[in-house]
Amino acid sequence: MAKQTKKPSDSCVTMTELVLPNDTNTLNNLMGGRLMHWMDVVSAIAAQKHSNRIVVTASADNISFNHAIELGDVVTLTAKVSRAFNSSMEVYIEVYAENIPSGTKFKSHSAFFTFVAVDQGGRPIDIPELIPETEEEQELYDGALRRRQLRLVLAKRMKPEEATELKNLFFEGQIDKK
Amino acid sequence: MAKQTKKPSDSCVTMTELVLPNDTNTLNNLMGGRLMHWMDVVSAIAAQKHSNRIVVTASADNISFNHAIELGDVVTLTAKVSRAFNSSMEVYIEVYAENIPSGTKFKSHSAFFTFVAVDQGGRPIDIPELIPETEEEQELYDGALRRRQLRLVLAKRMKPEEATELKNLFFEGQIDKK
Amino acid sequence: MAKQTKKPSDSCVTMTELVLPNDTNTLNNLMGGRLMHWMDVVSAIAAQKHSNRIVVTASADNISFNHAIELGDVVTLTAKVSRAFNSSMEVYIEVYAENIPSGTKFKSHSAFFTFVAVDQGGRPIDIPELIPETEEEQELYDGALRRRQLRLVLAKRMKPEEATELKNLFFEGQIDKK
Amino acid sequence: MAKQTKKPSDSCVTMTELVLPNDTNTLNNLMGGRLMHWMDVVSAIAAQKHSNRIVVTASADNISFNHAIELGDVVTLTAKVSRAFNSSMEVYIEVYAENIPSGTKFKSHSAFFTFVAVDQGGRPIDIPELIPETEEEQELYDGALRRRQLRLVLAKRMKPEEATELKNLFFEGQIDKK
Amino acid sequence: MAKQTKKPSDSCVTMTELVLPNDTNTLNNLMGGRLMHWMDVVSAIAAQKHSNRIVVTASADNISFNHAIELGDVVTLTAKVSRAFNSSMEVYIEVYAENIPSGTKFKSHSAFFTFVAVDQGGRPIDIPELIPETEEEQELYDGALRRRQLRLVLAKRMKPEEATELKNLFFEGQIDKK
Amino acid sequence: MAKQTKKPSDSCVTMTELVLPNDTNTLNNLMGGRLMHWMDVVSAIAAQKHSNRIVVTASADNISFNHAIELGDVVTLTAKVSRAFNSSMEVYIEVYAENIPSGTKFKSHSAFFTFVAVDQGGRPIDIPELIPETEEEQELYDGALRRRQLRLVLAKRMKPEEATELKNLFFEGQIDKK
Repeated sequence: MAKQTKKPSDSCVTMTELVLPNDTNTLNNLMGGRLMHWMDVVSAIAAQKHSNRIVVTASADNISFNHAIELGDVVTLTAKVSRAFNSSMEVYIEVYAENIPSGTKFKSHSAFFTFVAVDQGGRPIDIPELIPETEEEQELYDGALRRRQLRLVLAKRMKPEEATELKNLFFEGQIDKK
Repeated sequence: MAKQTKKPSDSCVTMTELVLPNDTNTLNNLMGGRLMHWMDVVSAIAAQKHSNRIVVTASADNISFNHAIELGDVVTLTAKVSRAFNSSMEVYIEVYAENIPSGTKFKSHSAFFTFVAVDQGGRPIDIPELIPETEEEQELYDGALRRRQLRLVLAKRMKPEEATELKNLFFEGQIDKK
Repeated sequence: MAKQTKKPSDSCVTMTELVLPNDTNTLNNLMGGRLMHWMDVVSAIAAQKHSNRIVVTASADNISFNHAIELGDVVTLTAKVSRAFNSSMEVYIEVYAENIPSGTKFKSHSAFFTFVAVDQGGRPIDIPELIPETEEEQELYDGALRRRQLRLVLAKRMKPEEATELKNLFFEGQIDKK
Repeated sequence: MAKQTKKPSDSCVTMTELVLPNDTNTLNNLMGGRLMHWMDVVSAIAAQKHSNRIVVTASADNISFNHAIELGDVVTLTAKVSRAFNSSMEVYIEVYAENIPSGTKFKSHSAFFTFVAVDQGGRPIDIPELIPETEEEQELYDGALRRRQLRLVLAKRMKPEEATELKNLFFEGQIDKK
Repeated sequence: MAKQTKKPSDSCVTMTELVLPNDTNTLNNLMGGRLMHWMDVVSAIAAQKHSNRIVVTASADNISFNHAIELGDVVTLTAKVSRAFNSSMEVYIEVYAENIPSGTKFKSHSAFFTFVAVDQGGRPIDIPELIPETEEEQELYDGALRRRQLRLVLAKRMKPEEATELKNLFFEGQIDKK
Repeated sequence: MAKQTKKPSDSCVTMTELVLPNDTNTLNNLMGGRLMHWMDVVSAIAAQKHSNRIVVTASADNISFNHAIELGDVVTLTAKVSRAFNSSMEVYIEVYAENIPSGTKFKSHSAFFTFVAVDQGGRPIDIPELIPETEEEQELYDGALRRRQLRLVLAKRMKPEEATELKNLFFEGQIDKK
């Protein structure tokens, strides 16, 4: 029987958060840990939407915090599945920060989280395939294999020399564009 | 003037958290985002202790969530600085989960976060050097360069072909042991 | 000088929340007060986007809670300005609840909140006009006068006999369609 | 068998809250949504006390936010049932805000919420009648029919022309005095 | 100039809390620490009301937790000043727990907290005297000296042999009746 | 059968908290109630570790709040069992407050909490004996009887004249040294 398929837009989720005092450090900037917590929630919902299953976080990829987000800013997170494997999914998250009274808005972060779909007993379960539609979605889809190998190598579950996709990264600069 | 030096044990911090209902997903397991939030807090305190400065999160490395932590479990996080650069520090975090009534305890996660020390105006500022003492601390110290190059490559701030330390990873399996 | 104008889509905001244990009553259903809190946040952001100002909540219209939302459900709130007056705005909010594993999704609530745009000293300040674009937006725009009169009458700031728009409601059934 | 009766004072509840940083907006004023959340909790407890049952929020009437409440203020909410129907109750809530060091105290808000009493399976269940005692309680009791018709009309569950009690509002100015 | 006086009823505060999932331990009972937090808030407000000043917690007397309070219970705390000294006050707190659907209500705890009134710079400042009115208030007022000596002895700020009031406790059984 | 024994170090727990805005009063100092909540959590975990059981808080001894802890400070709490009885334990807690940028650190509080170990049905259950090792642990162990009598007298469960250990306090100054 043919496996069910879904588009990235089927799992797209938008979450908006207001930065409140308890979310900030002594410089009045959003703490990194709070942002990661929001990233986890929004991407878990995207993974649920793709799989129609309970999902558990499997990994969070390297996140770089370059831009300070301030108290009172509006943070918008969008997440959509970038590639599905057997029972696991990679989700791509973009974060925008906006200071509305001053009219500034910028893309502050992007990240990849992975999730495993499980049944009520917590056992991994098959999920639909993902068929990318736009050019950007295709790029994210293609880069997912490299990122997956990097995760496996970093988790000591793949030998570096077997990470063929990943090696290209260092010879051909094929690092993901996002 | 010689730069001040500190030992990893000078920045060592232990944090203990009890997993409460709002920290869990529908399987009654700790949500990954909550754990990352705790990791950020404990490692920020370690970075503060090393630098005696306000610090801001610069990055969180790839985190793999292999083990479920359950409602009612006691989570112990320890963090210490693994290497200091000019104004930035890498912090190594270990997470243990313990179900006390059933007598089970296991190392559930480890992670690396980096922080930048800043003055009151938010500008980066020099910090003490780190001098590792134990063998484990020396290993963490040595691996820090590779992890730093990986962060820079992933953040598109270093070309893959210039990441000489990192390349060894794929030829010599020198991935960090933790 | 002509007053600036904006479209409803300029202020559209989407917020997604996961129903956690502390959000629920003893029947494991989302508490009404928590939902109103989320409605207030999402509509305040919409009002900020329209006005590019700090905003304060002026009123919440009658809200009817017909459908139970359960623990673990995903709640999606969308808000957009439905009409602008001198310094105040009416915002229309729709709430959808979704149980992803069971594949059910329904429109659970709609509501109107009003906000006043203020300067840093808390004084009301002029805001752009709203120009509706779609048929639905036009309807919301038209109904805003009736709802405004109802608010003024209920707040004892308009005599019932002067509420001409509102009176039609009881003679011509022109209650807003949402 | 005669139905059990209760007095408004049997369900009277007082709740006191201190306005903390996370309850406030960027002007350091209490956010409307937080206040509505507190209103919901205090009135749910009043409804529980009248019915000795689990209750679910059925509606919140129009709330007008005229007065700013500030960080550090003490907010006192009192709630009591104003009229009981078969399985539903209307609860009247008064809110006082007090800045103790400056010695100011004022009635900042009033509101009506309705609740349905349910059994463990969530089915509506009969509740005691309410017998008003004071003049103010009688007035609240009498106005409850008008407010109920307004709720039904606004929820499209009653045709405006059938809302006889409500119509008087616009001809005789019988809007509730509170 | 005669010092201002106040009655215990001038500072009386009632706080009502609903026991939510995050307030409970793995037996679904209210955690002691949460209850102490509520006690601190309600008694701080009482101390503010007596002194019309900012107050800081000076001590919490021995608290005994004899009765379990359960998830979903309604907790009512009342606090009033029991005696005023120069700049410090003792506050008496009673806690009632109620399971409304089952119709059970009992006094679960009582406690004494002390507070110091301070000016904006944090320096202790004179407060009004307290004049007890009822017999119970007189008893609480009289016992306050004994409890104060016990606090001072336990804090090593009074030698046990100088605690004359306290010594009576062990010879005449004059321990406070509450 | 010989009863199992444990050392104080077997139950030692360290908890680290960062003082966030919502933990503070209007002077930006940590609220006493929040600190007591943290004390309860850390000492409950120590009691769990000693007994390998679910534990419930039985009492909190007199706590004196002499030192202000400020917003942004790092609070370190350590707890270990000081004496075990049949099914109850006394836990000793030390609290250190640290302002890292200014390099100040001081012992701010100490406290004793007691807990009862219970089975799943909530019934008290036997726990291991505690064998003190260091001189400080022996002192805490010895003083536990006096503190226990004080608790019983204050809770009206022992007549003052029977509290032989406690009486020494007032004749020989044997109050606990901590």
